[in-house]
Amino acid sequence: MPAKRLNSRRAFLCSMDLDFKKLDGLVAAVIQDYASGRVLMVGFMNEEAFRKTVETGYATFFSRSRNKLWLKGETSGHRLVVKEISTDCDRDALLIRVEAQGPGVCHEGYESCFFRRLENGQWQVSAPRTYDPAAIYGDKQ
Amino acid sequence: MPAKRLNSRRAFLCSMDLDFKKLDGLVAAVIQDYASGRVLMVGFMNEEAFRKTVETGYATFFSRSRNKLWLKGETSGHRLVVKEISTDCDRDALLIRVEAQGPGVCHEGYESCFFRRLENGQWQVSAPRTYDPAAIYGDKQ
Repeated sequence: MPAKRLNSRRAFLCSMDLDFKKLDGLVAAVIQDYASGRVLMVGFMNEEAFRKTVETGYATFFSRSRNKLWLKGETSGHRLVVKEISTDCDRDALLIRVEAQGPGVCHEGYESCFFRRLENGQWQVSAPRTYDPAAIYGDKQ
Repeated sequence: MPAKRLNSRRAFLCSMDLDFKKLDGLVAAVIQDYASGRVLMVGFMNEEAFRKTVETGYATFFSRSRNKLWLKGETSGHRLVVKEISTDCDRDALLIRVEAQGPGVCHEGYESCFFRRLENGQWQVSAPRTYDPAAIYGDKQ
């Protein structure tokens, strides 16, 4: 691993304790609103994304569809300010409690990506839109 | 798919809407305490585990290490009673709010599997044990 990638020895050390093997180099990261406790989204981090998250204080994921690092809020400005990071017993998942900047984390215009609830066997939208995604993302969404 | 596996046409229909392709047949399932909002664990479900969860009302996962369905609480009795199921914008993750039976969901004796917090670059235990895992699991843990 090139030394230039190790911006922080401290972050490197703790990332070494995580088990990235079970998901082909990734761990699941649950994003929870620090104040309300609402679960906002689930993303995935590789070792570099985890280090960036720790070092910058902004949640950074690995985009499986684009196959590259993804600073959440890069386009929208709706960044996730990290308040607390926990890992689980198997050290293969993260719980990241955040202060979410902006009206919502979901690119479809909702506060939380989990806006569809199972009701009588059907997924039903269960939350109001909090912003107009077209105004933020334009053609990019 | 054998007809006998389809105990509920309704559950089958909604599972068809989930995207199991991105994780080799699995979706991530975040388990959150319905009353406190605490995130208790992250598991993975294949289509059958999801159907079982919906049909029985008890969270059932697919164990990647044992390569089979895993009714949470089968050994310990600490089952997760499903109160609400949501999915995210990409339909590739689940948020399941539960009433957790027993003193904790973690096989290491904690209420939540997320009992280690990142503090000054080190994972530190941040919660008290709520039960003695040896008394529940014996040699099985």
